[in-house]
Amino acid sequence: MKSVDWLIIDWGTTNFRAFAMNKEGVLVSKTERPLGLLQVKNNQFSSSLKVVLEGWLGEYQHLPILMAGMVGSAQGWIDTCYVETPTSINKLARKSHSFKLPWGAQATIIPGVRYRSPLGNFDVMRGEEVQLFGLQTLESKANFVALFPGTHCKHMQINANKLSSFTTFMTGELFSILLNHSILGAGLPKQQDSLNAFKKGISESNKKPLTNQLFYTRTHRLFADIDETEVSEYLSGLLIGEELKTLTTKNIYLVGDNKLCSRYQKACQILEIQVSVIDGDDVFLNGMLQIKKALNDEK
Amino acid sequence: MKSVDWLIIDWGTTNFRAFAMNKEGVLVSKTERPLGLLQVKNNQFSSSLKVVLEGWLGEYQHLPILMAGMVGSAQGWIDTCYVETPTSINKLARKSHSFKLPWGAQATIIPGVRYRSPLGNFDVMRGEEVQLFGLQTLESKANFVALFPGTHCKHMQINANKLSSFTTFMTGELFSILLNHSILGAGLPKQQDSLNAFKKGISESNKKPLTNQLFYTRTHRLFADIDETEVSEYLSGLLIGEELKTLTTKNIYLVGDNKLCSRYQKACQILEIQVSVIDGDDVFLNGMLQIKKALNDEK
Repeated sequence: MKSVDWLIIDWGTTNFRAFAMNKEGVLVSKTERPLGLLQVKNNQFSSSLKVVLEGWLGEYQHLPILMAGMVGSAQGWIDTCYVETPTSINKLARKSHSFKLPWGAQATIIPGVRYRSPLGNFDVMRGEEVQLFGLQTLESKANFVALFPGTHCKHMQINANKLSSFTTFMTGELFSILLNHSILGAGLPKQQDSLNAFKKGISESNKKPLTNQLFYTRTHRLFADIDETEVSEYLSGLLIGEELKTLTTKNIYLVGDNKLCSRYQKACQILEIQVSVIDGDDVFLNGMLQIKKALNDEK
Repeated sequence: MKSVDWLIIDWGTTNFRAFAMNKEGVLVSKTERPLGLLQVKNNQFSSSLKVVLEGWLGEYQHLPILMAGMVGSAQGWIDTCYVETPTSINKLARKSHSFKLPWGAQATIIPGVRYRSPLGNFDVMRGEEVQLFGLQTLESKANFVALFPGTHCKHMQINANKLSSFTTFMTGELFSILLNHSILGAGLPKQQDSLNAFKKGISESNKKPLTNQLFYTRTHRLFADIDETEVSEYLSGLLIGEELKTLTTKNIYLVGDNKLCSRYQKACQILEIQVSVIDGDDVFLNGMLQIKKALNDEK
């Protein structure tokens, strides 16, 4: 482990992932633990981290650590507040919070980002902003739209190299609770892939208010307009359709894990939206590398 | 119990209610049991019913029974199918299903109703149609709109004395699963009444796609735009607002129980919709009485 020079940590509500990087910013080793915020009791963040690092790297006392995610929220280790849009990677670096760990090494937490919509509502995120700027430096584009599918999907708008606005859609979480806790998922057999049911969901989305439209998931099943095994696909299409039909561009980036991105990619194909799919981990590490450079430039 | 002439049963998914009526159609006695469809095992409907009647009335063998609700669904006692809109009370009576009970008495199940929207989607109901026609004969109106708040709220349109169309909104169920199973309800303190938070929810509803708008329930709480104790009221306003803003009339009936109707009534006041509130039980019993008369006229 001699070549490890610094550490990157993605510390979220349910997951903990750590990446050991060398001086050139190349990944040397990584680890993942079931140590999300919900698992850390009584604010034992530094001792939890110490246990992971001892088991994983042994020698780690001198390594500086860069962290992002919900670890910087009010429910996390240190509440780092939010940077307001429009924002750049330099602003994120400038507003990040550095402190000394009990074993002497330096830790830095990247702040979240907040956007106030013209209607006065706030959107917030923690973690995706790092991926976004990682993507931006990889692609060298000043203006684009990027989607980050997930529990709470983020649609981000980059204008003149700055993150100018973003919107959150609770698509993933709604899908999950509707399927697991509502009448729509009650008594379903094992679900199967179905492009037809997914397409039907997309085509029917946004034609009616969602609280009404969702009920057709029930009646389609009742009258065999969709098969019992395809309810999940129809519902997925309905919710992703509601989200994608808000887009005003026909050209986007999709950032995230393969499985979810390929579902969104299929939806975009149906809606004739051009897509570039980007691996979420790649741009996360690159984003952290860029933030590290920006932090060093400031010194 | 000599004066009891016939029985009315409202048999739903989670509730069983029975009403003993005299010859003049006046309520003599009623009972309620935790004997919804979900509690009746192995299709033991007639033996379950027998146990209730023996305990409640003793002598019941000669009494004809009129039933409505999910008891007539595929998951119920006998699948009575659906009558198509436009429909009248006479059509409901004509299409109801009569059969002999093991103890010799006659039972009749009122069918459900189905509406096919111009987009080709189906809405369905079982039980509310009885209340609707009970309301109609009480009010003697040929054209009106009636709302039946609940787990799945129904908006019904009466034209020329017939039920011409209706729409289902999953307002109640969405409210419940969002509060109990999503991040919006996570870690909330005891909730309190708040007209302001309810108003805010109504005023913000339908401005954005719901999958996006719902997330503001989270950020309003995060930034103290609404109090921790008022999240439930805001969410209720958001979902009821989405529903009520689809109305094209400014004059409606609200049918149901007091608590839920008074919540909808408040929302209508805010949206300047004129409301007549009608007790759900009254119009249910009256609807069953009218159906009984129609059945007798046919003989």
